[in-house]
Amino acid sequence: MSTQTTDRQALDQLCVNTIRTLSMDAVQKANSGHPGTPMALAPVAYVLYTRIMRHHPGNPGWPDRDRFVLSAGHASMLLYSMLYLCGYGLTLDDLKSFRQLGSPTAGHPEYGHAAGIETTTGPLGQGISTAGGMALAERMLAARFNRGHTVVDHHTYVIASDGDMQEGIQSEAASLAGHLGLGRLIAFYDDNHISIEGDTALAFSEDVGARYEAYGWHVRNLGEDIELDRLEQAVAEAKEVEDRPSLIVVRTHIAQGAPNKQDTAGAHGAPLGEEEIRLTKEAYGWPPDEHFLVPDEVLSHFGECRERGEGWEREWRERMDGLAADDPDAHAEYTRISQRRLPDGWERDVPRFHVDTGMVATRKSSGEVIQWAAGAVPELVGGSADLAGSTLTLIDGAESVQRGAYGGRNLHFGIREHGMGAFVNGLTLHYLRAYGATFLIFSDYMKAAIRLAALMRIPSIFVFTHDSIGLGEDGPTHQPVEQLAALRATPNCNLVRPAGANEVALAWQFAIASTETPTCFALSRQGVPTWNPAGVPRDAIRRGAYVLRESYKEGDPDLILMGSGSEVHIANAAADRLEADGIATRLVSVPCMDTFAEQDAAYRDSVLPPGCRARLAIEAASPLSWYRWVGDAGDVIGMETFGASGPQKALYEHFGFTPDNVVARARKVVSG
Amino acid sequence: MSTQTTDRQALDQLCVNTIRTLSMDAVQKANSGHPGTPMALAPVAYVLYTRIMRHHPGNPGWPDRDRFVLSAGHASMLLYSMLYLCGYGLTLDDLKSFRQLGSPTAGHPEYGHAAGIETTTGPLGQGISTAGGMALAERMLAARFNRGHTVVDHHTYVIASDGDMQEGIQSEAASLAGHLGLGRLIAFYDDNHISIEGDTALAFSEDVGARYEAYGWHVRNLGEDIELDRLEQAVAEAKEVEDRPSLIVVRTHIAQGAPNKQDTAGAHGAPLGEEEIRLTKEAYGWPPDEHFLVPDEVLSHFGECRERGEGWEREWRERMDGLAADDPDAHAEYTRISQRRLPDGWERDVPRFHVDTGMVATRKSSGEVIQWAAGAVPELVGGSADLAGSTLTLIDGAESVQRGAYGGRNLHFGIREHGMGAFVNGLTLHYLRAYGATFLIFSDYMKAAIRLAALMRIPSIFVFTHDSIGLGEDGPTHQPVEQLAALRATPNCNLVRPAGANEVALAWQFAIASTETPTCFALSRQGVPTWNPAGVPRDAIRRGAYVLRESYKEGDPDLILMGSGSEVHIANAAADRLEADGIATRLVSVPCMDTFAEQDAAYRDSVLPPGCRARLAIEAASPLSWYRWVGDAGDVIGMETFGASGPQKALYEHFGFTPDNVVARARKVVSG
Repeated sequence: MSTQTTDRQALDQLCVNTIRTLSMDAVQKANSGHPGTPMALAPVAYVLYTRIMRHHPGNPGWPDRDRFVLSAGHASMLLYSMLYLCGYGLTLDDLKSFRQLGSPTAGHPEYGHAAGIETTTGPLGQGISTAGGMALAERMLAARFNRGHTVVDHHTYVIASDGDMQEGIQSEAASLAGHLGLGRLIAFYDDNHISIEGDTALAFSEDVGARYEAYGWHVRNLGEDIELDRLEQAVAEAKEVEDRPSLIVVRTHIAQGAPNKQDTAGAHGAPLGEEEIRLTKEAYGWPPDEHFLVPDEVLSHFGECRERGEGWEREWRERMDGLAADDPDAHAEYTRISQRRLPDGWERDVPRFHVDTGMVATRKSSGEVIQWAAGAVPELVGGSADLAGSTLTLIDGAESVQRGAYGGRNLHFGIREHGMGAFVNGLTLHYLRAYGATFLIFSDYMKAAIRLAALMRIPSIFVFTHDSIGLGEDGPTHQPVEQLAALRATPNCNLVRPAGANEVALAWQFAIASTETPTCFALSRQGVPTWNPAGVPRDAIRRGAYVLRESYKEGDPDLILMGSGSEVHIANAAADRLEADGIATRLVSVPCMDTFAEQDAAYRDSVLPPGCRARLAIEAASPLSWYRWVGDAGDVIGMETFGASGPQKALYEHFGFTPDNVVARARKVVSG
Repeated sequence: MSTQTTDRQALDQLCVNTIRTLSMDAVQKANSGHPGTPMALAPVAYVLYTRIMRHHPGNPGWPDRDRFVLSAGHASMLLYSMLYLCGYGLTLDDLKSFRQLGSPTAGHPEYGHAAGIETTTGPLGQGISTAGGMALAERMLAARFNRGHTVVDHHTYVIASDGDMQEGIQSEAASLAGHLGLGRLIAFYDDNHISIEGDTALAFSEDVGARYEAYGWHVRNLGEDIELDRLEQAVAEAKEVEDRPSLIVVRTHIAQGAPNKQDTAGAHGAPLGEEEIRLTKEAYGWPPDEHFLVPDEVLSHFGECRERGEGWEREWRERMDGLAADDPDAHAEYTRISQRRLPDGWERDVPRFHVDTGMVATRKSSGEVIQWAAGAVPELVGGSADLAGSTLTLIDGAESVQRGAYGGRNLHFGIREHGMGAFVNGLTLHYLRAYGATFLIFSDYMKAAIRLAALMRIPSIFVFTHDSIGLGEDGPTHQPVEQLAALRATPNCNLVRPAGANEVALAWQFAIASTETPTCFALSRQGVPTWNPAGVPRDAIRRGAYVLRESYKEGDPDLILMGSGSEVHIANAAADRLEADGIATRLVSVPCMDTFAEQDAAYRDSVLPPGCRARLAIEAASPLSWYRWVGDAGDVIGMETFGASGPQKALYEHFGFTPDNVVARARKVVSG
């Protein structure tokens, strides 16, 4: 072995141990966190960031960078150590304030808190699944824009833990990634045999590698042979397999090098303790009493990442210049999309539906509006969890995305709602505007992914149809009741339940215009009338609620009826009768309670004048969300129980969603 | 071939075609439903019910019956046809009112609507996963009660569809079933190549059999070879494999025999149409214009199920008699458990915690109460999704349940929350009282299983700890905000968030006493004071809310503070200061908003007197649930945003969960 090789090996080891000791020290200082996994995975991260990944710490937003997703988000100090050492902007002080309020180094990596965090991880299974969406986006953009110049050409790398591998969302996403042949997706599975309750064998004895092979992945099991060159070679082999995603299984040792805590559950979720840290540092040949020590040669070595990154970006810019010269439209379009700018004037010509359109299910008008949106916004792509014909979410004239053919815009997620949610988030993180569709009831299956979109402040779009007992015969297993309340209670998540085609059109406009908030649609299976577009203000969704029908007399009405979606027209029919009886009735449509709650008091009071306490809300869902708006003197017609199996009309009769019942309850409210 | 064989084959075919035509006719009459899958699976169901399963239509509640779970719940007419033909009580008129309001033959099979429906299915993946819990319960009860006499000795059969096989919950449950070696679980996978969007190959190309082998299952692929004897033989072989669950893959043809619709997506979720039904019946050699025709010889043949069932139950009663003679305690205990009766006097000696117990996290007091509950109720079993040390849910001195060793009471579900939910439901359906534990945030991962427990009206118990931003440093990915509102909005689901150890004890008593409603616990990570047990009424949870501290003056107070869980003591500290300032303050603890909402107005008004409009609620969660109770003049201190990563105390300060803020906001409320 030459001196040079020995020197390099020594430097490598010093770098790896720097990652380890930074992680140990930060967790200890926070007195909270997960030290063992960063210690175990330091060699993998080191190889990825210094030998494999084409990234540019000087420009973390470089569009063609390789993506790295730490699906094992609890090992966040591994990522923070890498981002600090590579020069992404995190400072040593940031590491020292790990897990402190206001620090970018949160307990789990949070998208947007520090450059280089590609997605929020921590809820297990989400990271590797979201990465699937990123890897798909890369192929879809490549199919569109690699026109003679390879301007989209990168990989998505993942480190996943035992926990990730046990979660159902991961199974769904891995099956889909295998189906789609996402060869640019390369995941490490950290098989460390330790989970919180002890040895993983307590609950987990499947053959993960064989399972991934069944999904159609390329699988390589390195066992304990995770020496740096070996890791590098395994990734090189994985990159050769272009038509299948790759899983590289590594058998690591949690808290590697800690004399008393290696391979113990005690090193998983708690600091090692000062004494064990001393002993571990001694075992590494590290000054035992130094904390947050970063040797100069380590910093200098990592500094090369920046230089290499500059070179890669320069080469990419040359390819972009080539594209600009040969196909200026493609160049402009990819530039626009990668800067997350919508096309100029995209929002013009949002469809308006004439009142003569008559009774149309909002899922159906949504299906029409999607055609407009797809025309106006080329980066809009989407699909459903095997419910295209029911959710009406196919883009006309666009191809289906399939293995090896990524130029289309229609996605087929299979019956994998949670995986779909993560894929939609991954596509959205990776420049596309994506939607995923299913029945509203199955928002329960994918709630954790919706929540992550809200937490990450990304504008994922979720189209939920069959949004109430109005779906009829499929019965209570398929009839949402509490889902609207659950989504409304979720911070930074806009739930839109349009009352008719014109609100639907504005809702799509609103969802696409959104930059920091996901939008969930709740759309009816059954027909609803088309309201006169003149009565639906352009800011109906942004304002959240508006007066759809004014009462016959001036000043405060005697009664306010309010509701959303497919119940608004029932309230309207009741209003006809109530007004005929001399009860001045205002009808308020509330397509988005979330945005309405954000309006100033003046606007809210203009819609719901404080002088009118007689208020009745109607919505075929849990009444929970409405109490705030109807107030002490008001009432809510909602669902206090589960639904039932039967034809829609029979159910609406049975559960009281009829003009008769609205009139009767309204009279009670008015008479106080 | 002998005449006898030919005759039998003809009769078999007649029976199979009866199942098919009943399904076709019922779906057509309902003008809604899924005809194709019942037609395809009729041979499988026929073999199971007439040749394989030991069941007794005359006593559907016979404890030792084989269980059948139609995981492909959309094929409900298959099950209803079998239940009618076998004599479970469903009538031909019930089949004719398929999917009509009030009929037991709902769109998807609903537990409790008809005898012989073992669990509610329809939301894909739930059935096969719940079946895993049933199969585990069988082994656990066998380990306890097969003392010289085999009184627990049956199988759980499942029919699962492509949709089931794509859902993540199924992956989790199948991995767990494989890990636990549940040899009594035998599932058919109906590989019919058709899903709603078209060929399953559009989104699903994995090798399901290989995946199940990776989970440790015995897998047999019959391909198209599903002649009745072959099916019977495959099950016989599966039963021989006692240490592994079995998957039998059958390649079926949706709408088999329909000349124009076989193997088409059009036969999946819509009636065949009168003309196609005629043609299909002709192809079957069936009178084309007869509807709901059941040949006498078919009914007579199915009638034998009842006789055989009587015989099996008689033999079982003999074994039970043997147990009664040799081990009367075991006999009495198994009888009691299988009748779902709790032990006499179990609720005596519910723990009471002295006020000197001091600050204790409610997860910790729950851990102590579980020991009492486990002693009082031997059928109580449970575990966590790899968080035993955090949720504190292990039963002291009990063994862990593991492959081949089912005598313990501690379960290790792995990091599989959704699968855990389904297993808990399956255990609960199968006589045990089971709980599953994880962090409250992960209720999102398992919501669909919680909902099924509520819909089925079974008393599953879900223990959720780390129930707010109070979990601290793990940050917003792990901090629930909207989950309390979501669970409260769910019908027939009791969410209990106890304010201290004495409410915790009563909550466990309440959960175990529940017969028709699941209970979800929301427990704190951080310490809370122990309230004087004399101030916590015995019916605190059943009533849902109570006056924990009366104001200093008689009559209506000037202010009501209310809250739940770890925020109640913050309100109490504020009350000290407010009362010192002369604001007569009542403190109301609301451990269960769901039951409080069910109380009559008199009780509700006694706790929240209408004369006092100055009300302030405090809960470290979405305020959505509280508006109803604080009213127009009130206010809520809640979480309008996601949380953050930091120490608990810093977070409570930051988000306003402090006595200072309560005092300030209360003053505003009082001054109006």
